[in-house]
Amino acid sequence: MDSDILDSITFDANGLVPAIAQQHDTGEVLMMAWMNRDAVQETLEKGQVCYWSRSRGKLWRKGESSGHVQRLVDFRVDCDGDTLLLLVEQTGVACHTGRHNCFFTSIRDGKAEIISDVEIPPEEIYGDKTPAP
Amino acid sequence: MDSDILDSITFDANGLVPAIAQQHDTGEVLMMAWMNRDAVQETLEKGQVCYWSRSRGKLWRKGESSGHVQRLVDFRVDCDGDTLLLLVEQTGVACHTGRHNCFFTSIRDGKAEIISDVEIPPEEIYGDKTPAP
Repeated sequence: MDSDILDSITFDANGLVPAIAQQHDTGEVLMMAWMNRDAVQETLEKGQVCYWSRSRGKLWRKGESSGHVQRLVDFRVDCDGDTLLLLVEQTGVACHTGRHNCFFTSIRDGKAEIISDVEIPPEEIYGDKTPAP
Repeated sequence: MDSDILDSITFDANGLVPAIAQQHDTGEVLMMAWMNRDAVQETLEKGQVCYWSRSRGKLWRKGESSGHVQRLVDFRVDCDGDTLLLLVEQTGVACHTGRHNCFFTSIRDGKAEIISDVEIPPEEIYGDKTPAP
């Protein structure tokens, strides 16, 4: 990989860049998480999405405990280099609540409304320990 | 609006939350920008998207100089309340480069590739002064 690629991405003061994951064929926005330089490099090299978990303070190979991996289909950088858009093939569900995507709360008429159901109960995904996102 | 809605959003240490704008009918991810509490409130109340411009340090009523506004169609919050997904009707183009969306650079085979064309030259949008994003 051309090392200029990594240098062209603007990481914030914490060394992180936000990464939006979108299902490549349906357009569904699945989640947003963060990457550091190592996570970007690993994702591009292996073709499996790896984030940086801010809560756990380490690389987060999406799906390594749940099996719900994200295969990278296309990797895009925005106009000022400080946001990533990952087109992925999601296995299973993206959200740790067991929903297909994380954006299941809609604000309508000034009230929060849950607009999608749990597809796989978290205890089936993680056993008795649901991880921090 | 229920003030609990604003309280349920987790703003970062700078008082900001990332907001992804997605074209509501095509699923195209247009851009990612930031909102503070005032921007969220104005967007929900007026139904026109207003961000916080980090570079200009003030509210950024998207399209106020270009006319390329974003009408809010649905406002979603993610599972841990720290990312927003705005489904919008985009007038004109979302990107300050004159492209329809900001994610026009793809990393393929280790190289950056421009995958979409300028639809409206920035000088037609902004005159001689292209604003900071």
